[in-house]
Formats: sequence, structure tokens, C-alpha cells
Amino acid sequence: MPGQYKLTYFPVRGLGEQIRLLLNDQGIPFEDFQFDRNDWPKIKPTMQFGQTPCLNDGDTQIVQSGAIMRHLARKHNLYGENDCERTYLDMFYEGIKDLHSKYVQLIYVEYEEKKDDFVKNTLPEELAKFEKLLKSKKDGKGFILGDKISFVDYTLFEELDIVQLLDANCLNAFPALKAYHERMHSRSSLQDYLKHREQAKLPVNGNGKQ
Amino acid sequence: MPGQYKLTYFPVRGLGEQIRLLLNDQGIPFEDFQFDRNDWPKIKPTMQFGQTPCLNDGDTQIVQSGAIMRHLARKHNLYGENDCERTYLDMFYEGIKDLHSKYVQLIYVEYEEKKDDFVKNTLPEELAKFEKLLKSKKDGKGFILGDKISFVDYTLFEELDIVQLLDANCLNAFPALKAYHERMHSRSSLQDYLKHREQAKLPVNGNGKQ
Repeated sequence: MPGQYKLTYFPVRGLGEQIRLLLNDQGIPFEDFQFDRNDWPKIKPTMQFGQTPCLNDGDTQIVQSGAIMRHLARKHNLYGENDCERTYLDMFYEGIKDLHSKYVQLIYVEYEEKKDDFVKNTLPEELAKFEKLLKSKKDGKGFILGDKISFVDYTLFEELDIVQLLDANCLNAFPALKAYHERMHSRSSLQDYLKHREQAKLPVNGNGKQ
Repeated sequence: MPGQYKLTYFPVRGLGEQIRLLLNDQGIPFEDFQFDRNDWPKIKPTMQFGQTPCLNDGDTQIVQSGAIMRHLARKHNLYGENDCERTYLDMFYEGIKDLHSKYVQLIYVEYEEKKDDFVKNTLPEELAKFEKLLKSKKDGKGFILGDKISFVDYTLFEELDIVQLLDANCLNAFPALKAYHERMHSRSSLQDYLKHREQAKLPVNGNGKQ
């Protein structure tokens, strides 16, 4: 039995991967429904904004990855301990989304012309912000909030993971982020899923670029 | 005395206007600090992501408009009554942000080439989603949540306001959104601010396009 959750998304990592990571790492059962691209015209009109990922929580359909992540965070105690921490997490999350928007623009619109510039200029500038913020709690040796994992840790982990596919050395100048990525990557609660994902050869993006 | 809040932003509506609308409508005192563009190079490095709007709540600096809106929503009871409503608001908010990203791309990157296409195709497609969602509560005759105003109402109101500057008739095909915009626009708690904004001739965007 998959439990009460069903995640509907394309067979890629994309915006859905942070959700898969959270659910797997937290040991929360869910159905990981990856639909065939040919079925998209049928599925699209059933989604509130014509988009996926979509999480069904029982009878409730939730779309928009940020809304899904926050929904799971509230239900599974991954949204900090107080409003001050919640605001900090929202801020961090939106900062990662800004980088991700630039990443998506690169991948889907201007990969060939702009990849070098992105790796050389955009990426270091963006990563420097996260390095600084991460180091502001527990000297960067813990999670985004310091001691306790939160929903945004899955978003940051995924983002750091995929930008290293653009440039395997991009974290070298950011020791806190590099160590953080390694810590997240070696969490015992993620090993089964990461192995499964590798075997399934799940593409990062819909157009095969990475 | 401006109270505990200080909003720092460019002298435009942009991403800051939803925040100004919320604070003014709710009667929450704040300092509306609109800096001179020439001072931006000095201000930029003091911001966590090198961006504004920024809200100072006492000693706490909050950046990212989505984080600021949610912070105010939590503090001033504008985030629904339960987790189900909060998730719905997050979803609605992210949906508006998707439209706003397309709007910003139009305004700052491809205004001349794409304005007609945006008005003719993108806008109706996006507005149809909000019309449908809005009508799902109180037959579209109330707020986004139905009976109670929320932080996302200020975001939606502002978005509907600015897209009508692109095309004054764009809401004609969406009667619920049109009536909603008129209701929000005529709120007595907003009249002083809207009059002040008109007199100040606050531009919608940084490049003067709208």
C-alpha cells in the first residue's frame, strides 16, 4: 500500500525531485507515479494550473512544487520550530528558486550559447550567497536551520546535486556547501532511493540536457 | 513613529507593491523607504541575496517577496485558519508568481516583439486558471479563501491591476476576476494609499514600461 500520498510527475527529476527526496528520506510511503509523456495532453487539463508536479493527499490535489513542499513540511514537522525559523526557510527556499529559474532558462532556452557563462559567472555568484547563509548557522556544519533538517534541505541538496552535473568542480570554492552536499548524499535514509534512481537512469530534465 | 517595520525597495511598484498594499490595507504602520537608484550599489551588498524588496522587522532582515508576504501573513492572521487553507494559499500564490515571471520577462526582455502575443494568448490562458479557482469559493463573490481576506488577495489584486495596464479590457472575459478587482480596488481601507500612490506617480516597473 502506498499510503495516502500519490505524486504525479514526468519521468524526470525536475521540480519533482525535491519532493521525492523528502518523502524517501523521511520514510513516508507514497506512490511515485511517473506518467508517460504521451499521456500529458490527457493529464494536463486535470491539473489546477495545467502543470505538474502534483501531490494527491487523500482527496486533495496540490500543485505547485513550493506549495507541495510546504504542505509536507507542515504535516511532517519539517518547517522549523517557530515563525522566525519559518520565515528564514521561506527566504532560503525562494533564493534557491531564483537560481533554479536561471538554471531552467539555461537548460531549456540557451544551453549551447550560455553554458560557459553560467558556469563561470552566474553559478559562483549564486552559490556564494548560499555558502554565506549556510555558514551563519552552526558554522555551516549542520542543516540550513542548524540542528534540525527542514524541507528546504531537500531543495538545496537537489540544486547542489544538479549544478555539479554542469560543472563537477563548481563547489570547490565553497567548502561549506561541498561538505553539506556530501553529508546529505551519504544519509543512510537516502541510500536505497539514490541507488534506485541511478539504476532507473532518471533524467534530470525533460530535454535530456544537464 | 513608523512602528517596527521598514520596507526597503526601489521607487516602483514591482515586487514590493503587494507588501505595501497589505500593510496599508491592514492599517499596519511601516516606513516605506524608497531608495534613490543611485544608492543601489551601496545597498545591494547589505541584502542577503543582493536583492530587494527587504522588510526589516525590528532587527530581522527579511528578503524575498514571498517570504516577506508569508511572514506578515503569519504575524497578522492573513494565512487562513488551518493547514488546508494555508496549502491552498501557497498554491494560489505560486500560480500568480508563474504569471508574474512571464510578465517580468515581457516587460524587461521582449516588450516590443511580444506584447501583442502576451495580451492575446498568454494572459487569457493564465487568467482563466484564476477565474476558475476564484469561483470555487463563494461562487467567486468573496476573497480567495471565500469569507476571509488573506495575504494572497493583495498579490492577486496587484497582478490584476497591472495586467489591465497592458490591456484595459483583459478582464472582460473573466467576470469573477473583474468584480473581484473592483471590490478590492474600492476597499475603504485602501483609498488613502491608492490616492497617495496616484499622486506620487509611482511607476509600475523599473524601466518605465507597463
